[in-house]
Amino acid sequence: MTETLYRRVADDIARQIEEGMYRPGDRVPSIRRLAGQLGVSIATIQAAYDMLESRRLIESRPQSGFYVRHPVDPDTGEPPMAEAINLPTTVSIRNEATAALQRCEGEGVLNLGAALPAPGFLPRRQLQRILGRLSRHCIDEIVMARFAPGLDSLRHEVVKRLADAGCHVSPQEVVITNGCQEALNLCLRTVARAGDTIAIESPAYVGLLQAIESLGMKALEIPTHPQDGVSLDALELALEQWDVRACAFVTANSNPMGASMPDEAKRRLVAMLAEREIPLVEDDEFGDLNYNRTRPRAAKSFDEKGLVLYCSSISKSIASGLRVGWCSPGRFENSVEFLKSFSSVSSPPICQMAVAEFMSSGGYDRHIRRLQSAYSEQVQRFIAAVSRTFPRGSTVSRPRGGYVLWVGLPGGVDAALLHERALAEGVGIMPGHLFSASGSFRDYIRLNTAVPWGDDAERAIATLARLTVELAGTLRH
Amino acid sequence: MTETLYRRVADDIARQIEEGMYRPGDRVPSIRRLAGQLGVSIATIQAAYDMLESRRLIESRPQSGFYVRHPVDPDTGEPPMAEAINLPTTVSIRNEATAALQRCEGEGVLNLGAALPAPGFLPRRQLQRILGRLSRHCIDEIVMARFAPGLDSLRHEVVKRLADAGCHVSPQEVVITNGCQEALNLCLRTVARAGDTIAIESPAYVGLLQAIESLGMKALEIPTHPQDGVSLDALELALEQWDVRACAFVTANSNPMGASMPDEAKRRLVAMLAEREIPLVEDDEFGDLNYNRTRPRAAKSFDEKGLVLYCSSISKSIASGLRVGWCSPGRFENSVEFLKSFSSVSSPPICQMAVAEFMSSGGYDRHIRRLQSAYSEQVQRFIAAVSRTFPRGSTVSRPRGGYVLWVGLPGGVDAALLHERALAEGVGIMPGHLFSASGSFRDYIRLNTAVPWGDDAERAIATLARLTVELAGTLRH
Repeated sequence: MTETLYRRVADDIARQIEEGMYRPGDRVPSIRRLAGQLGVSIATIQAAYDMLESRRLIESRPQSGFYVRHPVDPDTGEPPMAEAINLPTTVSIRNEATAALQRCEGEGVLNLGAALPAPGFLPRRQLQRILGRLSRHCIDEIVMARFAPGLDSLRHEVVKRLADAGCHVSPQEVVITNGCQEALNLCLRTVARAGDTIAIESPAYVGLLQAIESLGMKALEIPTHPQDGVSLDALELALEQWDVRACAFVTANSNPMGASMPDEAKRRLVAMLAEREIPLVEDDEFGDLNYNRTRPRAAKSFDEKGLVLYCSSISKSIASGLRVGWCSPGRFENSVEFLKSFSSVSSPPICQMAVAEFMSSGGYDRHIRRLQSAYSEQVQRFIAAVSRTFPRGSTVSRPRGGYVLWVGLPGGVDAALLHERALAEGVGIMPGHLFSASGSFRDYIRLNTAVPWGDDAERAIATLARLTVELAGTLRH
Repeated sequence: MTETLYRRVADDIARQIEEGMYRPGDRVPSIRRLAGQLGVSIATIQAAYDMLESRRLIESRPQSGFYVRHPVDPDTGEPPMAEAINLPTTVSIRNEATAALQRCEGEGVLNLGAALPAPGFLPRRQLQRILGRLSRHCIDEIVMARFAPGLDSLRHEVVKRLADAGCHVSPQEVVITNGCQEALNLCLRTVARAGDTIAIESPAYVGLLQAIESLGMKALEIPTHPQDGVSLDALELALEQWDVRACAFVTANSNPMGASMPDEAKRRLVAMLAEREIPLVEDDEFGDLNYNRTRPRAAKSFDEKGLVLYCSSISKSIASGLRVGWCSPGRFENSVEFLKSFSSVSSPPICQMAVAEFMSSGGYDRHIRRLQSAYSEQVQRFIAAVSRTFPRGSTVSRPRGGYVLWVGLPGGVDAALLHERALAEGVGIMPGHLFSASGSFRDYIRLNTAVPWGDDAERAIATLARLTVELAGTLRH
């Protein structure tokens, strides 16, 4: 193929998109089909589509094809890397975060606050069938709690998921928990005590901050890059300066920023901590939800000393309501296993069995591929809407997986006030200061995009944009 | 009626029981029927049956009639009140208790270890129907976690149960938890910190000891009467001597002794603690399971200062596998509610909905009445078998509710060794030292009697008796 040829094909398609022949969200012809139509080689079309992808005009979706992206105002940049306050801090967001999440669940509120997918994204029909079958045939197992650290069938399936992330563990090295939140709690309690310092991302997952606060530990915020995750240089300095007892990071498609650490960074992180014998609590809840097909390796896959306590759950993919999570705590397996038993005995067998069956039936992999497409589409639509409507100076993250967005408001707009005003107009969002131990990010909000895009969502974004403009206006006077 | 007449009737029935015309477990004629047969007044038969009940020959079972009791060897007494070690102790049963419970769940082991009812005692068919209906009609609620402290429908039902125990609270004062174990953990974490001292019964519930240990708190064992519960005089002395941060007691049908505090004692307890502003974590898990119809009042019913944190669950009555418990934490409601959210977000909606529906349908009350009869019968059969087969010097508790027995072994027999040997022969029991912070009760075992009585159970008791005799014999040489 000649360079001229594939460029020409790419330019043609770009013009057709511009002219509205293909609209945002439309599928463009498959490579094979277009090659046939134009009478050129498959390699030529492949090269043209690569070029269109790098120009962010189209995107590939696993096992589905290529789609026209939703256009983003080029003025709307990404949030910058935060200058985190380098000082171990007692967390005191107290109950404010849960209260905010509860208010977002209110009657008549479109919930863009909680990072939980709406039922429409979840495999409801399959779960219906599975739950019906379990209640008919397995009632004796359903009614009896067991003191085991999880059902064998589920631990077996979790091991396969861990293998996808490059981690090779046995079912005996897995503890089933009540969601990822319990896993994080048990792991933190195992490796640290009240008063100890935990290094976290900045911004960090709100549930992690709540766990740290409720356990009386301190948080040390490490500057975090919006695309590449926690800064290892900053972490290295922090480890020299402070007595850090453990680290707790989301390594892929982080919440709220959507950052993913490159493999090389994960390797370096694990080595850096191994040298100092510092445990890493790794939250990989969004790892399965990459928009491209590649499943990111977990930091745990580089762990040779058993220092990584891996945590995940099905809350983002199958059903947050089943409250099924797990951890594989490396050398701390024994402690976590018993701590689980002391805390809540076991997770309900009906929930464990349902998840095991859904995973073993092969339904999980198909479902995850559908979700990758769906969440990618959602995130794009929300980014496009934010860039279209929010005032100049706003920023929005560009996650490559998951479904939450981190939106920076133009200078000085108080996100807590925006949260209040938005609730009054039926829109739930999370204000940014709840994602920081030091009260940073007062001009950021987190948006959950796993809410079916449509008039309601579009109106909600327009409302947020209008309120932001109003609040910015107030400041100028 | 003349005194002679009802005595004569009672003597006749007693002779018929002795001669085997009515055998243990048989129903004797109803009062109305016997009065008709003998041509005497109902009051006469009533008086005769009262006399037979006080001689422990028959027992009444709510809404069912009068039954012949299983005879107990009069030589087998009750365990005495323990001389508890009056010193705050760091708990270090560590993982041993959970490991013991896990081994009792092993293949081919008759589990008399865990205090959980076998499926046959549970409302399986009703739950089957309810779970099937929920998965068909409520899948959207099932798949979504919520940050609320529990579903309104369930909190509403729990409030009715609390009213039965004399406690008048609103649904907003109830937090739903993953079983009573999580409730105890959340309440302890709310009122005390690592290093603080918690006053407990002696012997105490093993899950409470595990919670105290895992939270780094200390336990202070208070002497406890096998029938009347914790000694308030001893408690009063202890409160003068030590800085007790909170008390944690089972007030009705305690685990493992089966003690129930009289109402007057509960009133005095609450007043004693109120005066000193000391919170009481009240575990009322067995409160519904009194063998007579009266539902014991909870200590919380005497609470005027909001210092009682009431905990309970459905694990002993509906299904331990659903992991549904609750607490009503008085003035600490806010803290417990948020701590629940930080620890595990919420309990699975499917489990909460199933319990709410079972309770609201009226099925719960009927089921509890059946259980009261069934557990009473089980406990009697086990007591009778122990008294018949265990060597002289053994003791066994006489609970008036619940289904666990506390069995004293003749001098010096090591219950931990008995536990090992019994497991090797397919019988799971819990050794007594796991119910003490100070390692007392080394010559006690706890038996779960909520296992259908039959050849297997009879053989298990015979095995335990034989092993006890062997171990006692070893000691003599």
